[in-house]
Amino acid sequence: MTARKGNLMEVRRDIKVLDATIRDGGLCNNFEFTDEFVRQLYKANVRSGIDYMEFGYKASRNMFKESDFGKWKFCKEEDIRSIVGDNPSDMKIAVMADVGRCDYKEDFLPKSESVIDMVRVACYIHQIPAAIEMIEHFHTLGYETTCNIMAVSQCSTEQIEQALEMLVVSSVDVIYLVDSYGSLYPENASELAKTYLKAVEGTDKKIGFHAHNNQNLAFANTIETMSYGVSYLDATVQGMGRGAGNCAAELLLGFLKNPKYNLYTLLCFIEKYMLQLKKDGVVWGYDLQYMLTGQLNRHPREAIAFTSEGREDYSEFYKTLLEN
Amino acid sequence: MTARKGNLMEVRRDIKVLDATIRDGGLCNNFEFTDEFVRQLYKANVRSGIDYMEFGYKASRNMFKESDFGKWKFCKEEDIRSIVGDNPSDMKIAVMADVGRCDYKEDFLPKSESVIDMVRVACYIHQIPAAIEMIEHFHTLGYETTCNIMAVSQCSTEQIEQALEMLVVSSVDVIYLVDSYGSLYPENASELAKTYLKAVEGTDKKIGFHAHNNQNLAFANTIETMSYGVSYLDATVQGMGRGAGNCAAELLLGFLKNPKYNLYTLLCFIEKYMLQLKKDGVVWGYDLQYMLTGQLNRHPREAIAFTSEGREDYSEFYKTLLEN
Repeated sequence: MTARKGNLMEVRRDIKVLDATIRDGGLCNNFEFTDEFVRQLYKANVRSGIDYMEFGYKASRNMFKESDFGKWKFCKEEDIRSIVGDNPSDMKIAVMADVGRCDYKEDFLPKSESVIDMVRVACYIHQIPAAIEMIEHFHTLGYETTCNIMAVSQCSTEQIEQALEMLVVSSVDVIYLVDSYGSLYPENASELAKTYLKAVEGTDKKIGFHAHNNQNLAFANTIETMSYGVSYLDATVQGMGRGAGNCAAELLLGFLKNPKYNLYTLLCFIEKYMLQLKKDGVVWGYDLQYMLTGQLNRHPREAIAFTSEGREDYSEFYKTLLEN
Repeated sequence: MTARKGNLMEVRRDIKVLDATIRDGGLCNNFEFTDEFVRQLYKANVRSGIDYMEFGYKASRNMFKESDFGKWKFCKEEDIRSIVGDNPSDMKIAVMADVGRCDYKEDFLPKSESVIDMVRVACYIHQIPAAIEMIEHFHTLGYETTCNIMAVSQCSTEQIEQALEMLVVSSVDVIYLVDSYGSLYPENASELAKTYLKAVEGTDKKIGFHAHNNQNLAFANTIETMSYGVSYLDATVQGMGRGAGNCAAELLLGFLKNPKYNLYTLLCFIEKYMLQLKKDGVVWGYDLQYMLTGQLNRHPREAIAFTSEGREDYSEFYKTLLEN
């Protein structure tokens, strides 16, 4: 067993916290955040010491109608700039590009003309070649890049090792372990993290972790994988994200020992803006239906439908899951 | 680092799950559960394979007025029997006795005349001698015993080691690591668990874990300490317990691989009885105020007051916590 890196008292200078509230949280409200919300979140993130803020997706406007979604599904340059100006802060700006669902050759400016710093390429494991093609394109444009391999809890060890081998010789900066179904436990999340960390040993590449909270383990898995060397940590305010949501930024900032992270400003944002979102009926977070799909290592889509139908017959839902 | 015991696939036959819903959950509703609720929980626990069900406290009727509380604050023999009869099941019955708050010499029958199987003695670390006196008394009466050392996150390593030394030569059957403030992380909870496990090595004594969910880590800490050999695991239905609550039984049963544990019957109980409790206004569970006291390793009393006042000014609450 690989040793833990650092301890519970030390500052880990390699840690980067990425706030994915608008991107993953946007999946809860169709990306329909007000400009005021996004601007205040940007300010709060800067003051809280967040390292990266992800504004949303760069989705294909050929595949998705702009009028069907809030603007953060598309993250146009001018929309980001309307919030951050030239981003005169230390915090970097990220966007996500899904393999097969973005027009990456048309929709990205050279980095020198963009306020975006990092493009995160999300893919399933069979899409690694397509992801690498995109990563190389973004690298040539001058962006930092990540590859977020989703749903690894359903991949074989061989698939993961082969994907990592391919990524290690690519230009990607950060490889993310993504627990899409919230089915990992601290024990196997850590073992997977060690596999990723071992693959990039001796390179400058970093490993990230993106959690889902189906089994109330998002924060636990984040700090456990971190303790073995994972350094890019995704979080969202109050865990806002699809289904059971993500690792809560306030839990993470309260845990990290680097004095640059400021929990107070984040709490101010929560009470002014997040509570209202919940009162307005935006729904996310741990609940039994997500626990069940997490335990069964299943996509949360049935649990999301169960939630949106306002159902409470958990036992019946469980039976249905066991039947198919 | 001590190795993990078993793996994520195996059945750990040494595991015992203790349902503490009535006891710790009773702190949320003044122990005022209906007989119907307790009876149905008893039945659900038996069918779900729960190993022990804790019915409440054996509190002193000299110190506490019976009319001020529901009956599970006192757990009279006839009240338990009115639910379980002679308990013709494999599930054992537990009650808790607080050091200094029970009349243990008067209020316990010999085991041969009681339906209670186990007495759990809860104490702070400076009360270990008093706890041991009680444990020996209960042992002589014929009960299984545990010692639940509370608030260990505020104890020194020396205190813990001395307490363990004293307990190892006592008649106690199980020593519980209790994260009263919900301030432990998987990393230090595991290290503490290893200290406890080491202390009882070579004896028949077992180690238990009782979690609180202040930082959404109750389940994570339970399964992490378990993975190193902790075998008595406290849980409550939907995590019902004081403040942020405990490890949720449904998360734990969904995790354990022993086919004797049946999640379905527990889900049926939840939808029929637990949802109604919440609708009736009984409040517990993870929230920011509990996160903050957990992060600061503090008693949750200020967070409980904040909750009962219906406050939402988390940032102000945080400032107050930092000031005193």
